[in-house]
Amino acid sequence: MVYIGIDVGGTGIQVGVVDEGGHILHRGAIVTRTDIPYQDQIKAMADCVLNTLAQNGVSLAEVKSIGVGVPGIAIPRTGVVPFCNNLGWHDVPFIDEFRKHIDKPVFVDNDATVAGLAEYVAGVSAGTDSSVFITLGTGVGGGIIIHGKAWSGFHGVGSEIGHITMDLDGESCNCGNRGCLERYCSATAIINMARKAMADHPESSIMALCGGDVSRINAKMVFDAAREGDATAGAIFQRYVSYLAQAINTIICFLDPEIIVLGGGVSKAGDFLLDAVRRELPRYILFKSMPYARIELAQLGPDAGIIGAAMLGQ
Amino acid sequence: MVYIGIDVGGTGIQVGVVDEGGHILHRGAIVTRTDIPYQDQIKAMADCVLNTLAQNGVSLAEVKSIGVGVPGIAIPRTGVVPFCNNLGWHDVPFIDEFRKHIDKPVFVDNDATVAGLAEYVAGVSAGTDSSVFITLGTGVGGGIIIHGKAWSGFHGVGSEIGHITMDLDGESCNCGNRGCLERYCSATAIINMARKAMADHPESSIMALCGGDVSRINAKMVFDAAREGDATAGAIFQRYVSYLAQAINTIICFLDPEIIVLGGGVSKAGDFLLDAVRRELPRYILFKSMPYARIELAQLGPDAGIIGAAMLGQ
Repeated sequence: MVYIGIDVGGTGIQVGVVDEGGHILHRGAIVTRTDIPYQDQIKAMADCVLNTLAQNGVSLAEVKSIGVGVPGIAIPRTGVVPFCNNLGWHDVPFIDEFRKHIDKPVFVDNDATVAGLAEYVAGVSAGTDSSVFITLGTGVGGGIIIHGKAWSGFHGVGSEIGHITMDLDGESCNCGNRGCLERYCSATAIINMARKAMADHPESSIMALCGGDVSRINAKMVFDAAREGDATAGAIFQRYVSYLAQAINTIICFLDPEIIVLGGGVSKAGDFLLDAVRRELPRYILFKSMPYARIELAQLGPDAGIIGAAMLGQ
Repeated sequence: MVYIGIDVGGTGIQVGVVDEGGHILHRGAIVTRTDIPYQDQIKAMADCVLNTLAQNGVSLAEVKSIGVGVPGIAIPRTGVVPFCNNLGWHDVPFIDEFRKHIDKPVFVDNDATVAGLAEYVAGVSAGTDSSVFITLGTGVGGGIIIHGKAWSGFHGVGSEIGHITMDLDGESCNCGNRGCLERYCSATAIINMARKAMADHPESSIMALCGGDVSRINAKMVFDAAREGDATAGAIFQRYVSYLAQAINTIICFLDPEIIVLGGGVSKAGDFLLDAVRRELPRYILFKSMPYARIELAQLGPDAGIIGAAMLGQ
């Protein structure tokens, strides 16, 4: 038997035929279109699945289930997607619609949850009792795995770690609240800190890396400059690491998983980030002698979306 | 078969013989002594259990297990209590020591976790899939129940909700960090807000309630004054409710349990607090149409500690 995983992104939709161990056997892809009704978007996904199977000589009878990760809120129990900004979806009955085209068990969950599940099945958190996966990208997402199962909450609206309150009177967030974690721990937060700093520190090498155009600053430029000893970039990096360590301490105080996995674009900084976080974290740990989660980098990269989605049906 | 529950508090230790439905059949108690070594404290607990059984004609053979809730960090897997300030304990091998006196299965967990478990077995969260119990007292504690089991984390240091970061540059906490949730949501936070407000608002009826001595202000005085229309007390109450609603929203964003239960001394304000929190919470909910946890008051009161401890072995 094989599993189908569908990774829905803002620009493209990736389909994979995945074996029981989480290995991708065959692939397909379509472009994400937001100018068509959700019924047509979902039919295009189903057609891509059927084409990928046909092109690789896999019969539908061999498919055990189909799983989908969406960049928004998904309610696993009902199969409804109440909100998915990248697709322009509101209250879309995803599973019911998809099964009009392919009559197999269909599962849907949030993309960060799915990525966390992939790391549990075939990545850095394999074999652990419990894990929290954090995607550090344009925003911040979370995936919670407890006793080998994805936990998206009772209503399917949990593991939205990016929107827990970290600063009561802090920066305004798109969600309407103040001081959400993703205002401090996302790539966007790094970029905002760097843009502000350039007014007072035009001598920073970040300025050269962005060609003098602060609108072109990205997180990698800031981390690269920090790594090479630029003082302004170093201060931003240290501030970011302090925020991230406090967010990780909050995860430990709350859920205390066996392992916390850092994924998403910012985590591509690799050991430079990981080592700094591991050094900073003990400052915030509640009791200095207590045991707490290992902090690790995600291993699977962009394939985590396909693999984890496929494994929703396992 | 019966279960023994032991509720360890700062001034007294309560013992209960509990049936499978969570009903207390017989009780015993001793005074908490901190002037003796932990070995003697634990022997006194075991003696109290044996005396309670003997006085009520229950044989040790009828006891299935013994559970203990402690006001500190307890690691269920190892039975060690790394930290319990009220007893002066550091790295106490609780289960090993206790079993020298009574050779039965022994379980230990944090007191808030145990109270949350009691509400699940015999209180307001009975029959739910998942719950988070919040004790709003001198500090703030938490108890997490998932699929009917207490979750204290992989290392046993989780559900310490009082110490998640809510304000990055906020008030200093005893734990050494800044802006911990319990600086905003505890009875202590209400008292501190009221004491500060009295300098500018000596006309507040809180002043009369405390007899002009601000060191005597407690949370009940502030809530009573708010309920009767005092403007200063009303503003403090509203600020507290706003903090608590943001803390609850954080719990929803992170774990999304079926139900969130408010316990501890502050929750004795009853519907006055509950109604205000339910009104305030929707302001902070991530997507306005999404389903989220019911908010309820704890039902069991002080017996929750005995009942939940007993149920650790169920």
